[in-house]
Amino acid sequence: MKLDTFDHSRPTPSRWNLGAIIDGLRISREATHNIRHHGRIRELPSREVLTGIVNGLSAVLFPTHYGRPNLTDESIDYFVGDTLNTTLNRLTEQVRRGLLFSSQSEAPDGPNDAALAERADEITRDFAAGLPAIRALLVSDVQAAFAGDPAATSVAEIMLCYPGTIAILYYRLAHSLHRLGAPFLARLISDIGHSLTGIDIHPGAHIGASFFIDHGTGVVIGETAILGQRVRLYQAVTLGAKRFPADATGALVKGIPRHPIVEDDVVIYAGATILGRITIGAGSTVGGNVWLTQSVPPGSNVSQAQMRNDDCPELKFREAAALKPTA
Amino acid sequence: MKLDTFDHSRPTPSRWNLGAIIDGLRISREATHNIRHHGRIRELPSREVLTGIVNGLSAVLFPTHYGRPNLTDESIDYFVGDTLNTTLNRLTEQVRRGLLFSSQSEAPDGPNDAALAERADEITRDFAAGLPAIRALLVSDVQAAFAGDPAATSVAEIMLCYPGTIAILYYRLAHSLHRLGAPFLARLISDIGHSLTGIDIHPGAHIGASFFIDHGTGVVIGETAILGQRVRLYQAVTLGAKRFPADATGALVKGIPRHPIVEDDVVIYAGATILGRITIGAGSTVGGNVWLTQSVPPGSNVSQAQMRNDDCPELKFREAAALKPTA
Amino acid sequence: MKLDTFDHSRPTPSRWNLGAIIDGLRISREATHNIRHHGRIRELPSREVLTGIVNGLSAVLFPTHYGRPNLTDESIDYFVGDTLNTTLNRLTEQVRRGLLFSSQSEAPDGPNDAALAERADEITRDFAAGLPAIRALLVSDVQAAFAGDPAATSVAEIMLCYPGTIAILYYRLAHSLHRLGAPFLARLISDIGHSLTGIDIHPGAHIGASFFIDHGTGVVIGETAILGQRVRLYQAVTLGAKRFPADATGALVKGIPRHPIVEDDVVIYAGATILGRITIGAGSTVGGNVWLTQSVPPGSNVSQAQMRNDDCPELKFREAAALKPTA
Repeated sequence: MKLDTFDHSRPTPSRWNLGAIIDGLRISREATHNIRHHGRIRELPSREVLTGIVNGLSAVLFPTHYGRPNLTDESIDYFVGDTLNTTLNRLTEQVRRGLLFSSQSEAPDGPNDAALAERADEITRDFAAGLPAIRALLVSDVQAAFAGDPAATSVAEIMLCYPGTIAILYYRLAHSLHRLGAPFLARLISDIGHSLTGIDIHPGAHIGASFFIDHGTGVVIGETAILGQRVRLYQAVTLGAKRFPADATGALVKGIPRHPIVEDDVVIYAGATILGRITIGAGSTVGGNVWLTQSVPPGSNVSQAQMRNDDCPELKFREAAALKPTA
Repeated sequence: MKLDTFDHSRPTPSRWNLGAIIDGLRISREATHNIRHHGRIRELPSREVLTGIVNGLSAVLFPTHYGRPNLTDESIDYFVGDTLNTTLNRLTEQVRRGLLFSSQSEAPDGPNDAALAERADEITRDFAAGLPAIRALLVSDVQAAFAGDPAATSVAEIMLCYPGTIAILYYRLAHSLHRLGAPFLARLISDIGHSLTGIDIHPGAHIGASFFIDHGTGVVIGETAILGQRVRLYQAVTLGAKRFPADATGALVKGIPRHPIVEDDVVIYAGATILGRITIGAGSTVGGNVWLTQSVPPGSNVSQAQMRNDDCPELKFREAAALKPTA
Repeated sequence: MKLDTFDHSRPTPSRWNLGAIIDGLRISREATHNIRHHGRIRELPSREVLTGIVNGLSAVLFPTHYGRPNLTDESIDYFVGDTLNTTLNRLTEQVRRGLLFSSQSEAPDGPNDAALAERADEITRDFAAGLPAIRALLVSDVQAAFAGDPAATSVAEIMLCYPGTIAILYYRLAHSLHRLGAPFLARLISDIGHSLTGIDIHPGAHIGASFFIDHGTGVVIGETAILGQRVRLYQAVTLGAKRFPADATGALVKGIPRHPIVEDDVVIYAGATILGRITIGAGSTVGGNVWLTQSVPPGSNVSQAQMRNDDCPELKFREAAALKPTA
């Protein structure tokens, strides 16, 4: 079908003048604003299916909290086994679809369908084998939340009511898939977690045990960030990039380390923005709304200067008209 | 039915003492806290239906990414045509309902039902005619994301995994409806996008091509903001109002320009708050967490003063006890 | 079933090596990383059911906005009564489940099942009796939004398109349940509201009438915060804790007052972080991105020092290379 030959003679409802719009969209799609991939036909992974897969994995990891009520000691392994089997069967298909978006698969001489399916099975099998280790990490995270939040009254509350718990669960599953060679699928899972919680953790980031995010809305952790153990973050903390080196053609260089290293036992309060490949030394505390682009040694306490009217007398309370509504 | 005559003699379950609560709610609703509109009966637009409509429009605009898998060159126009027709039929009904909330419709001598339905069809037809142009803008946005984020590996990743893409898609559809005279419906669509992404763009804002929002949670762009081309924003950036002029009766004046103008090629980093009808000159960079209420000339680099210990020695790293947990 | 005797002889699909994974998960669950409660079997409250319950309560409170279209004066009380009855029946079951997570219920000699069910009915009945008063508060909130936002064009727009309206609705319902002795269920309801809106209000907080949150993404209001009447907040405002006192064993002391008191008629702009048990005096204005940890008297205007180049000349616009992308 050529661009200009859509059959206007077929009966289209004239109410919306569909023919002209369909023509315009086709021209945009195929000529003027073409973003379509022109290699093999690729089925995209499905957000809905992935959401169900994460729910299944959650039930497998924590059957009494995220699974079915009233599981008995006798029945619980059967529930776990059956749910796991079903979920992995669905996961491998999504992994396979995601692999079609990796750079090597896009090459005309990329792997054939059988090789891709086998690779997807391999990734899924390795992912499944790692689930007990993921569970151990998640339990350390939940315990860190209980120890770190005076408002927390029970483990069940942290499992059911804390967005940070959900975000870290999505992240730890996504990170495992990312590490095993399924980065596209990992990114999609982490974006579903972002949409649910407002917490945006790139699956490429490395995060140690006993990680706690309180409240969490607006937290961003970039692709190459490295966090040690027992790190605690509050809402709206950014661990981001400062510079994006470009190559000779002006295109951004992908994948180079550009996000912070946060060592063990660091606490970062609400709204702090930490940018670039700097190191926050072990045991440091970074205060609310701080903007930080240089490394700090272990044990540092960094706070925003503003409102410290004892040190810098010009920075003080004032009857500032700036924000006063006119009325 | 008078306020005090609810028929307590009809059998109500006494478990919850329903009669008294129903009485109390009616009195609140009809007398003490009445917010109900008392003109013609108005059916409200439906969030659920609108969500389906935006999904349909997404499939029409990008059938291989948001539509059905395995569309062939031969079938794609039929899929687009059929989906578009169905979606516009649903949209015009929602537009009609939304029109009942415009100020002129609220007048007792407002347009009659037939006139409203005709006006809804007209808006829907004009909206549909603009879809190819909206597609062109969205493609420029996706390309800006790919060029601007070193973590982006493919166009498909940006289409499926970036909340900014979804937020801008909702905004560009909503803005078109707003411009064509359906502001209530536009606002509802943009709030659905906000709920999905944490990005709040008022449909009245004007935003040029090649717009990129990275991460995005917490971004707010106000009703009268104007953004040029190739603007890039990070999470938690506010383009807001500083003053709200009131009229002689103390009521806020609605609709006057009160949000920033951001010229071409401006980058605004995470957490910056920019307030008032000021202009950020072309090519400027605004740093993280900056609070800015005055215009800056083209090519400016504005950064937060704090942590600049070379210039203002009082503002430096310190062993600040302020945030140290007592233990 | 002992830890090491899972029956590997039953036919398990070998594709995923399920037996070993199930063993590993069981060991993690029952031995190495056990977080399960070992008292009576407890059915957890359900997020899905609670979402339906809040929808039902919303319809009861505002039948023409959140209920069914075309309710007539004659039919509206029947709709309200029927919806209320159904919703309360579902609520009491969820309250009962939530009570199993209160500390006294966890004791081996805690209340028996009949006593818990009776307590759940009592809480639900008291909650229902308070609905007209909750409606009055919510109407004051909606009116405050209309008065406080120049972009608002109608009450219907505020009811349907403002995330702050939804967040405050969830909060006021959750706070009532919290106060009546159902804190676990209250926390779950407030987390559903958080997930929908990006606004995180602990159900223990006290908030007066005519409360308005504009945009809202990233707002956090802590458990012991107290807000007066006519308070207005913008997105990303934190009313949080600064110190977490620990007891002799190092465990955090739960529940002590540690969040701000915000008096009547205070406005707090986007991104301000206010920490600790301090008081923001009546009628004060706190500017965007301010970080505040000390009380301020009534009528204060607190703004961020940065960008005030008249007072502190070192803090000024500059051609800062810090954020300039290398290229």
